[in-house]
Amino acid sequence: MNYQLILEEIEKEIQPELSKGKVADYIPALASVDGNQFAMTITLKDGTQYSVGNYLEQFSIQSISKVLAFSLAIDIYSKTLYKRVGVEPSGSPFNSLVQLEYENGIPRNPFINAGAIVVADALMSHFGGEYASLEKIMNFTREISANKDIKFDSLVAKSEMEHASRNLSLAYLMKSFGNLDNSVELVVKNYFKQCAITMNTQDLSRAMLYLAFKGKDPISNKEFLSEPQAKRVNALMLTCGHYDASGEFAFHVGLPAKSGVGGGIIAVVPNIMSIAVWSPRLNKYGNSHAGTLALEKFTTKTGLSIF
Amino acid sequence: MNYQLILEEIEKEIQPELSKGKVADYIPALASVDGNQFAMTITLKDGTQYSVGNYLEQFSIQSISKVLAFSLAIDIYSKTLYKRVGVEPSGSPFNSLVQLEYENGIPRNPFINAGAIVVADALMSHFGGEYASLEKIMNFTREISANKDIKFDSLVAKSEMEHASRNLSLAYLMKSFGNLDNSVELVVKNYFKQCAITMNTQDLSRAMLYLAFKGKDPISNKEFLSEPQAKRVNALMLTCGHYDASGEFAFHVGLPAKSGVGGGIIAVVPNIMSIAVWSPRLNKYGNSHAGTLALEKFTTKTGLSIF
Amino acid sequence: MNYQLILEEIEKEIQPELSKGKVADYIPALASVDGNQFAMTITLKDGTQYSVGNYLEQFSIQSISKVLAFSLAIDIYSKTLYKRVGVEPSGSPFNSLVQLEYENGIPRNPFINAGAIVVADALMSHFGGEYASLEKIMNFTREISANKDIKFDSLVAKSEMEHASRNLSLAYLMKSFGNLDNSVELVVKNYFKQCAITMNTQDLSRAMLYLAFKGKDPISNKEFLSEPQAKRVNALMLTCGHYDASGEFAFHVGLPAKSGVGGGIIAVVPNIMSIAVWSPRLNKYGNSHAGTLALEKFTTKTGLSIF
Amino acid sequence: MNYQLILEEIEKEIQPELSKGKVADYIPALASVDGNQFAMTITLKDGTQYSVGNYLEQFSIQSISKVLAFSLAIDIYSKTLYKRVGVEPSGSPFNSLVQLEYENGIPRNPFINAGAIVVADALMSHFGGEYASLEKIMNFTREISANKDIKFDSLVAKSEMEHASRNLSLAYLMKSFGNLDNSVELVVKNYFKQCAITMNTQDLSRAMLYLAFKGKDPISNKEFLSEPQAKRVNALMLTCGHYDASGEFAFHVGLPAKSGVGGGIIAVVPNIMSIAVWSPRLNKYGNSHAGTLALEKFTTKTGLSIF
Repeated sequence: MNYQLILEEIEKEIQPELSKGKVADYIPALASVDGNQFAMTITLKDGTQYSVGNYLEQFSIQSISKVLAFSLAIDIYSKTLYKRVGVEPSGSPFNSLVQLEYENGIPRNPFINAGAIVVADALMSHFGGEYASLEKIMNFTREISANKDIKFDSLVAKSEMEHASRNLSLAYLMKSFGNLDNSVELVVKNYFKQCAITMNTQDLSRAMLYLAFKGKDPISNKEFLSEPQAKRVNALMLTCGHYDASGEFAFHVGLPAKSGVGGGIIAVVPNIMSIAVWSPRLNKYGNSHAGTLALEKFTTKTGLSIF
Repeated sequence: MNYQLILEEIEKEIQPELSKGKVADYIPALASVDGNQFAMTITLKDGTQYSVGNYLEQFSIQSISKVLAFSLAIDIYSKTLYKRVGVEPSGSPFNSLVQLEYENGIPRNPFINAGAIVVADALMSHFGGEYASLEKIMNFTREISANKDIKFDSLVAKSEMEHASRNLSLAYLMKSFGNLDNSVELVVKNYFKQCAITMNTQDLSRAMLYLAFKGKDPISNKEFLSEPQAKRVNALMLTCGHYDASGEFAFHVGLPAKSGVGGGIIAVVPNIMSIAVWSPRLNKYGNSHAGTLALEKFTTKTGLSIF
Repeated sequence: MNYQLILEEIEKEIQPELSKGKVADYIPALASVDGNQFAMTITLKDGTQYSVGNYLEQFSIQSISKVLAFSLAIDIYSKTLYKRVGVEPSGSPFNSLVQLEYENGIPRNPFINAGAIVVADALMSHFGGEYASLEKIMNFTREISANKDIKFDSLVAKSEMEHASRNLSLAYLMKSFGNLDNSVELVVKNYFKQCAITMNTQDLSRAMLYLAFKGKDPISNKEFLSEPQAKRVNALMLTCGHYDASGEFAFHVGLPAKSGVGGGIIAVVPNIMSIAVWSPRLNKYGNSHAGTLALEKFTTKTGLSIF
Repeated sequence: MNYQLILEEIEKEIQPELSKGKVADYIPALASVDGNQFAMTITLKDGTQYSVGNYLEQFSIQSISKVLAFSLAIDIYSKTLYKRVGVEPSGSPFNSLVQLEYENGIPRNPFINAGAIVVADALMSHFGGEYASLEKIMNFTREISANKDIKFDSLVAKSEMEHASRNLSLAYLMKSFGNLDNSVELVVKNYFKQCAITMNTQDLSRAMLYLAFKGKDPISNKEFLSEPQAKRVNALMLTCGHYDASGEFAFHVGLPAKSGVGGGIIAVVPNIMSIAVWSPRLNKYGNSHAGTLALEKFTTKTGLSIF
């Protein structure tokens, strides 16, 4: 298949959609991004990349970082963490307190905010503090993306912390149920730093190869996850990767994927490729409008699907 | 791979689990089934079948019929029915009214009871009445299973109707929101008849080949669904096939699958095979306890997965 | 105090409000009522009545009948019925299923629809069938209003039954929890007949004297309820008499009262008088808009209050 | 009536109940209280007091302080605060987040925690900061109780702050909806100080005279509230004074009253007396077990009721 041609077709077809939706505006650092941008990169097993659009433009990966943090936590997960966060779709917006209260402070899955905060807490305890934990996440991200320059944007993290009421409410609720070991403020701060990692679609697409190839980076040959672990992270992305539009996404796109409010989405076609797409305007569910459509077009044009 | 050997291993290992869980007891016809039974059949592309256990024993397919009815309705779905039932995981038990009320009588997906009742209603309107609609479902089931003798158990259907308060409550709620066109009683009766279809694992496994092979039965070469349609039914089974344990099932088994309270589960490995397993005792989510474990063992032993 | 003068002042002041709000339109029989009508009657201990407006006009008492049915059931209530229906404000619209499901089919109180249906069921069982039960309610209503001609409007009852989906949904949900003994259809039918009783404000105001005077009709000297029982019915009207605007009503009016979607409201000033007011247009909570305002004006002008 | 005799009867009858229920144990300072204590005081219009039990023993008034704070805020309430907190019964536990989220951060009423935190926030803004606001509350409490020595227990307040996760979660949720003007930490701290006021039943009973007598202290003749304002505070106590057992309390006791987790309850018989009762063990709703029973006995024995 001529992937470059397909990406260029998609880029062209997607133009009228770039003005639809709304850039995340709850913090100034995100609100100021030019909403009409679009980028898409795919990476094959041998590292070959095809890209279109603003693929060198860095953006805030936000909730995509939940996949990275959960990958790092998966050994802890199978031992103890599974008691503290589930693997079920939430059926509710990503920051809902209702479900969390009915279910006694146990978040539905690690890809909604509450669940990701519990994962951040577990990593802090496991690695010995907020700095050690953050360093692990940064190093892991640099390693899988094969880019030592990956950083987080401390301005974005700080700005998130100033608008953190909803996440603090979630975290204090879990604390009240005994499901948070460390200081609420420290955990949430660390969580925001992880969300503030900036990457472009080339970095992101490269980084996800380990999930496309059963846990092992096919270029460095390094095994980051075991085969069953990789399968589980992918399953989780499929069922829970897009908040309360996860079913819709699986129905229309049919690939394991995770979105972030920065407008990025990563997806994998197991054994074939990893994909990163970016466009800042979001649909009503908080997922990139043009990014979602681009992925749908890609699976339609290529016939690639897990089903 | 020596599938027969693998199935026999599973049958052996599963023995201690057969006494765990509880046979569905809300109607006498289901409650009287011997709970310690187990059967498993896989069917390959060329029709080769491997089976273990009570694979000739007929059982009530119950909610597995939702996949059949939805397959029949999928043309209507893309035109109008999608406005009346969603494709999102429910995050709630299969017969919950709460979500249905908050979401104005629009069920989350066609694989929870409320959604399946809406599908039954749409089929009745589309095919011109309850008899015509039921006949279509029966004929479709006979065709895909290549077994003209498939019937529904009218005793089971009648017994369901006598214990139908919860489903009638769901249906009247949807009626009050204007999301049911036909008589509540007739729709629910027809829905129970469809649930009361009896099959064994050989029939069921054979019947699901069309979903394993992109909508086309690889033996008869008849196309029941288009490729994108088949992909969507499979996506729906993965995200919504096991009520509020769908995420758990995807996480541990990783195959599109659908369970029924009769103890049956069907699953597909796209492009490779279809699977049917049966064991009447249910776990707390209403899915076959031993059946779920058997499928988990099968994917672990074979390494088959969509991820 | 010159009550007649006060009522006439209120009638005058209320004129601009008579066009606000919306007549109940879920059944034709209620929708066809002229919405701009207003009537108010107070009855003192010795039977003296003061009235203004269309006080001879008959209207459907609807949910006001819940007070009558509960008064008849109060002996049963203290023995067994209290296990089947609570006495707490609902904090939700009058026909919410959510709460009912979370609380296992036990309605919050007898003045929301679900609770009144349970009371109707208990009366049917207690008095030996739907006819006997309905006759008891009719005779009780005739006796307390000292008017042998009180009837129910069978057209209204029939029309309700044709638009009963929501109430049938509530009733079947309770049935599924084992909280309904008789046939759902029969109980709901009987409930609608009781709601369809027609009275004018003179009848209604007269009828409520027993609640204003500690359970004993001060004119006939007949004791319908014991003193503690009367106190409890009044407490229930204060906390639960206006669905999810009960707190608002207590805050602004400060009298035990019960409204109906026909536009009627009854209220009592313990030891002093009973009040009936009627105006068909409803506010967003389903209570008479002008009727609520008239009662607020009455308590402000007279200084009468229980607090 | 011989009130002293009645109180002594109650004290005697209540003995077997003193060991039932559970002392609030979420903070050490409350958990260490001897649970078997009991005290009751009534105060008549002329200041005459009748007491039994440990009526000189000081205890933490906790949520009873919500009545004091709301009385101070009632002028602000009618102007602006009513938009930020309702007057409806909550139908949910006192610290539920669910309702708060569904209703966009607007608490149901000022007598649940969320509502009281909003009132504390409004008082801070109105009086110019946390110290000024706290001083106003303390001075008001000293004035109505005619006791200049009333203090709050700073150890209790500090201990509350160390176990504040649930309340911080509520407060941050409201903050995220824009319904909190000041710093979450400062508001919650101030709220805890107000809750930590310690009084005995003699102080408390004396303090509530203004609510029993239409807003005016009948001894000092000072008007703290207008007549309609006093009526509204009383209405609010009746409908919302006991969290999700408010209906139950109104049904069985029939007096405006407010409880606290320290085991205190205050109640008023309009135009006749104010009552304070205390016993530290709580029932499952968080209200004093023996205190509730004592009030029920008191109304039964005296026939006093507002209905």
